[in-house]
Amino acid sequence: MHPDHSGELASLNRIEGQVKGIKRMIEDRRYCVDILTQIKAAKSALHRVEQSILKSHIQGCLRSAVESQQELEIQQKIDEVMELLSKRV
Amino acid sequence: MHPDHSGELASLNRIEGQVKGIKRMIEDRRYCVDILTQIKAAKSALHRVEQSILKSHIQGCLRSAVESQQELEIQQKIDEVMELLSKRV
Amino acid sequence: MHPDHSGELASLNRIEGQVKGIKRMIEDRRYCVDILTQIKAAKSALHRVEQSILKSHIQGCLRSAVESQQELEIQQKIDEVMELLSKRV
Amino acid sequence: MHPDHSGELASLNRIEGQVKGIKRMIEDRRYCVDILTQIKAAKSALHRVEQSILKSHIQGCLRSAVESQQELEIQQKIDEVMELLSKRV
Repeated sequence: MHPDHSGELASLNRIEGQVKGIKRMIEDRRYCVDILTQIKAAKSALHRVEQSILKSHIQGCLRSAVESQQELEIQQKIDEVMELLSKRV
Repeated sequence: MHPDHSGELASLNRIEGQVKGIKRMIEDRRYCVDILTQIKAAKSALHRVEQSILKSHIQGCLRSAVESQQELEIQQKIDEVMELLSKRV
Repeated sequence: MHPDHSGELASLNRIEGQVKGIKRMIEDRRYCVDILTQIKAAKSALHRVEQSILKSHIQGCLRSAVESQQELEIQQKIDEVMELLSKRV
Repeated sequence: MHPDHSGELASLNRIEGQVKGIKRMIEDRRYCVDILTQIKAAKSALHRVEQSILKSHIQGCLRSAVESQQELEIQQKIDEVMELLSKRV
C-alpha cells in the first residue's frame, strides 16, 4: 500500500489557483516581471509538494524495501529515487 | 505597453490539467514515484513558460529601456532581471 | 565506517583544473559567455560528483540505519538527506 | 572590449580551496553528509560568481549591442543569454 499524500491536496488546490491567476495576468497584459514572479511562486509551491512526497516515499516505500531485505527491490527503489533526483527541473 | 504572452495560454491550460491530474493521482493512492514524475513534468512545463516570458521580456522591455537611454530605467530593468534569475526555484 | 568515495577524486581533480581555467580566462579578459559556459561545466561536474556521493550515502549509510532498526538513527538519516535535497544549489 | 571580471578571482581562489578540501575529506573517509555539505557550498559559491559575471555581461555586452542598434548583434546576444539561462545546472 502506498503512502497517503492527501495532506498535499490543499497546496495543489492553491497551485491550481496560481496557474489560473497567471493565465488571467497574461490576458490582462500585466507587466512581465509580475507574471514571472507569480510563475516562480507556483514553481516554488510545486517544489515544496514534491519535497514532501519524496520524504514520505523515502520514509515509507524505500524504508519498507530495505526492511523486506529483498535486494532487487531495494536496488530498484534506490535507482528510482536517484533517477528522480538527477532530473533538476 | 507590455509584450503579449498569450502564446503561453495553451501551455498554461495544459499545466492546469497536469495539476488536476496530480490531485487525482493522490486521491487514487497512486505510487509516489508516478506522482513525483508527474510533478516534475508540471515543473518542467512551468519552467519552459517562464523561459519564454523572460525571453520576451529581455527582447521587449529590457531592450526598450536601453533604447530609451534613461539610465535609471535601464538599471532598474537589469536589477529586476537579475533578481528573477537569482531565485533558483 | 563511511563509504569510500575515492572514485570521485579523478573528477574532483578535473574540477580543480576547470576552476583554475576559469581564473585564467578572467585574467585573459576572455568573452563573458565563454567564461559562463566554463562555469556551467564546472557546476555540472560538481553536481555529478554530488549525485554519486549521495547515491553511495543512500545505499550505504541510510540503508544500514534502516537495517539497524534504530528508529532515531533512521529518522536522523532521512532528515539529513531531506535537508540536503531541500537546498537547491 | 569585454568587461573585467577580476573582482571574481578572490572567490574563485576560495572555490579552488574548497575543491581541494573536498578531495581531502574523501581521502580522510569523512562522513558523506559532511562532504555533501561542502560540495553544496562550492556549488553555491560558483553560482554566485556566475550570477555576478552574468550581470556584468547584461550590463556591458548586451547593453552595448542594443546601443549599437545592430539587429543581428542584438539577437545573437539575447540568444546567447537565453541559451545560458536554459541550462539549469
